[in-house]
Amino acid sequence: MAVSNIRYGAGVTKEVGMDLQNMGAKNVCLMTDKNLSRLPPVQTVMDSFVKNGINFKVYDNVRVEPTDRSFMEAIEFARRGAFDAYVAVGGGSTLDTCKAANLYASSPGSDFLDYVNAPIGKGKPVTAPLKPLIAVPTTSGTGSETTGVAIFDYEYLKVKTGIASRAIKPTLGLIDPLHTLHMPERVIANSGFDVLCHALESYTALPYHMRSPCPANPITRPAYQGSNPISDIWAVHALRIVAKYLKRAVRNPDDLEARSNMHLASAFAGIGFGNAGVHLCHGMSYPISGLVKTYKAKDYNVDHPLVPHGLSVVLTSPAVFTFTAQMSPEHHLEMAEILGADTHTARVPDAGPILADTLRKFLFDLDVDDGLAAIGYSKADIPALVKGTLPQERVTKLAPRPQSEEDLSVLFEASMKLY
Amino acid sequence: MAVSNIRYGAGVTKEVGMDLQNMGAKNVCLMTDKNLSRLPPVQTVMDSFVKNGINFKVYDNVRVEPTDRSFMEAIEFARRGAFDAYVAVGGGSTLDTCKAANLYASSPGSDFLDYVNAPIGKGKPVTAPLKPLIAVPTTSGTGSETTGVAIFDYEYLKVKTGIASRAIKPTLGLIDPLHTLHMPERVIANSGFDVLCHALESYTALPYHMRSPCPANPITRPAYQGSNPISDIWAVHALRIVAKYLKRAVRNPDDLEARSNMHLASAFAGIGFGNAGVHLCHGMSYPISGLVKTYKAKDYNVDHPLVPHGLSVVLTSPAVFTFTAQMSPEHHLEMAEILGADTHTARVPDAGPILADTLRKFLFDLDVDDGLAAIGYSKADIPALVKGTLPQERVTKLAPRPQSEEDLSVLFEASMKLY
Repeated sequence: MAVSNIRYGAGVTKEVGMDLQNMGAKNVCLMTDKNLSRLPPVQTVMDSFVKNGINFKVYDNVRVEPTDRSFMEAIEFARRGAFDAYVAVGGGSTLDTCKAANLYASSPGSDFLDYVNAPIGKGKPVTAPLKPLIAVPTTSGTGSETTGVAIFDYEYLKVKTGIASRAIKPTLGLIDPLHTLHMPERVIANSGFDVLCHALESYTALPYHMRSPCPANPITRPAYQGSNPISDIWAVHALRIVAKYLKRAVRNPDDLEARSNMHLASAFAGIGFGNAGVHLCHGMSYPISGLVKTYKAKDYNVDHPLVPHGLSVVLTSPAVFTFTAQMSPEHHLEMAEILGADTHTARVPDAGPILADTLRKFLFDLDVDDGLAAIGYSKADIPALVKGTLPQERVTKLAPRPQSEEDLSVLFEASMKLY
Repeated sequence: MAVSNIRYGAGVTKEVGMDLQNMGAKNVCLMTDKNLSRLPPVQTVMDSFVKNGINFKVYDNVRVEPTDRSFMEAIEFARRGAFDAYVAVGGGSTLDTCKAANLYASSPGSDFLDYVNAPIGKGKPVTAPLKPLIAVPTTSGTGSETTGVAIFDYEYLKVKTGIASRAIKPTLGLIDPLHTLHMPERVIANSGFDVLCHALESYTALPYHMRSPCPANPITRPAYQGSNPISDIWAVHALRIVAKYLKRAVRNPDDLEARSNMHLASAFAGIGFGNAGVHLCHGMSYPISGLVKTYKAKDYNVDHPLVPHGLSVVLTSPAVFTFTAQMSPEHHLEMAEILGADTHTARVPDAGPILADTLRKFLFDLDVDDGLAAIGYSKADIPALVKGTLPQERVTKLAPRPQSEEDLSVLFEASMKLY
């Protein structure tokens, strides 16, 4: 169980210059994306750098939903800059890009595929010491400020994959609720769905003592180790916050209490799944976003078709938890209850349908597109979606119930329409 | 919010040699006490060293309830040894001694009082980089494997004080339930009371946004920062485990489930109070153990009078929470309910007495001595007990309700007899 250092509070971002000074940093890389680079979170960070005499260079070419190519460009920038610390300001895309840049710049002889998850990459353990990285999340979804994971689209195979190692976990996360006020409605909704699924999936993941293989040497154990007594605490707590605050946070951009709580929930769920792992919603989401055709999500200011990560994850959740419920019906009922279902008279075999119905109602109330069909997929796409899920073994093997290709087809089909 | 890395499971201690190898350690200091040095936990560690080719030296002269003198002896050993990593196997005394040895050996120009908490010491921030320290707790109380705190008796003033800095937090805690099976009845009871009070005190500590002063620079902020949304999670969860498992763990040494859960609860409560802090029970406990006359606790194999830390902490808890309840009655009622009280018809002004009665019943059921009188104190000792509490500002200022010397007198007097 490894946990990140986080500092929470309105305005904590202003302290980033002092933190860097305390670390002795002299030459800092500030990573962000083009939209954010003109907004208050980045401005606050730069003001703090100036005030504390920190030299820095800005890289603002982060791609929303990054690719191996966009990672590589950031890595090249990091290598040339010979930085002694990194600050990433943005959503999961920026934080993940910065983790990759720090990793490869700190490991000069490495090939890009060396640290990419097997079977796509070689999944080598990281032994090079990295530079400090301070993560300042501006969305409330990925929890990337607390995890050792960096996700990207591998363009050649048209699938999402990533890098997963405790070594790339940020040194410090600054969780500043003031950054959540700029988020448009769909961004807060979709990032909230990511938190929802992190909690649901990590709580129902294969228990840690049932995972295999079990490498004898701790350093070769995966970052995702299965559900365990500690990750369970974070998952349940994050889910409670989602149940209480997500709708308020979506509906009212000025509800600082709700948005603050979702910002914390994102970190809490991150600490949970960052140790336990996620499973089918995430495994199936990667081809759903990777194979996007023309869908352009509302409220996202990008120049390419995009299924936001949180949306791609949540659309299969009713089908997935119907499928997994038989493995731990009491956990599934507990989650349905936290999300507002009345489970007093529920029978064990109803656990899956009850949780699925609760999720459908939750998504309907939040105006979520009606299933995969509504974002451009049809039955004819199912074989490609299944094929794109198969390489996601790192997560799909953490599902509590093993799944065949046929099972995956059925899950995608059941997710075409939700309501 | 800073959290330690912990690994939990029966047998994880066997991996310590591999962990050291992965860290590149070549010359390791193994710290423990004389009793443990002949017992399986230390043997397991040494076997793992030998199997993984780790060179090590053993220091087994740790004092149970350490003093500045016993700290200094361990520091001297560490300085001479020029170790590149430390492994501490034992209870809080051993873990704390090892933290101090690592700190001062890594900071050659320092005087002993430099890092000791003000007002007794100078409370300087630690800037020197320390060596890795792996903590293997063999009692289920202090949670020292997760905290940046090292407590000792300052003999000259006859008070307990300590060193508190995030820098001395262990690199890794190995929480191995197999080590809990050797603990005699009173050791598991008293260490469990420490967990109980860590949870109760950190949950009721002054909220983090009400603490003062608020140093502008993060590095000068105290390790104990007041209760906060994250420490609350750990406190409540640890308390639930204590309520469910402590009595079973005390009564049946073979109840591995109960003892395993208490071992985890100790770490959970440690993560909570290690960030939030403790307050009056702990602040008042230091003179209670420091001024010990002739009391020798059952089941402790030591050659000097001793009030075990957990006992010195818990004896004032009914009085303390009666005193603090008015500041957050709902929290006090919630804790009473977790400990088994029926609070359905409780009124707000009853919160203190209800929690106090619940604690008294809990202690009575576990055969705890009937108050300070039963361990050798009388009314005449109260001025000295109060005087010994005054320098404990680091914790007493975290009490939700300010307290005068008169208040402290009343609290000690009310703790003379419990039942």
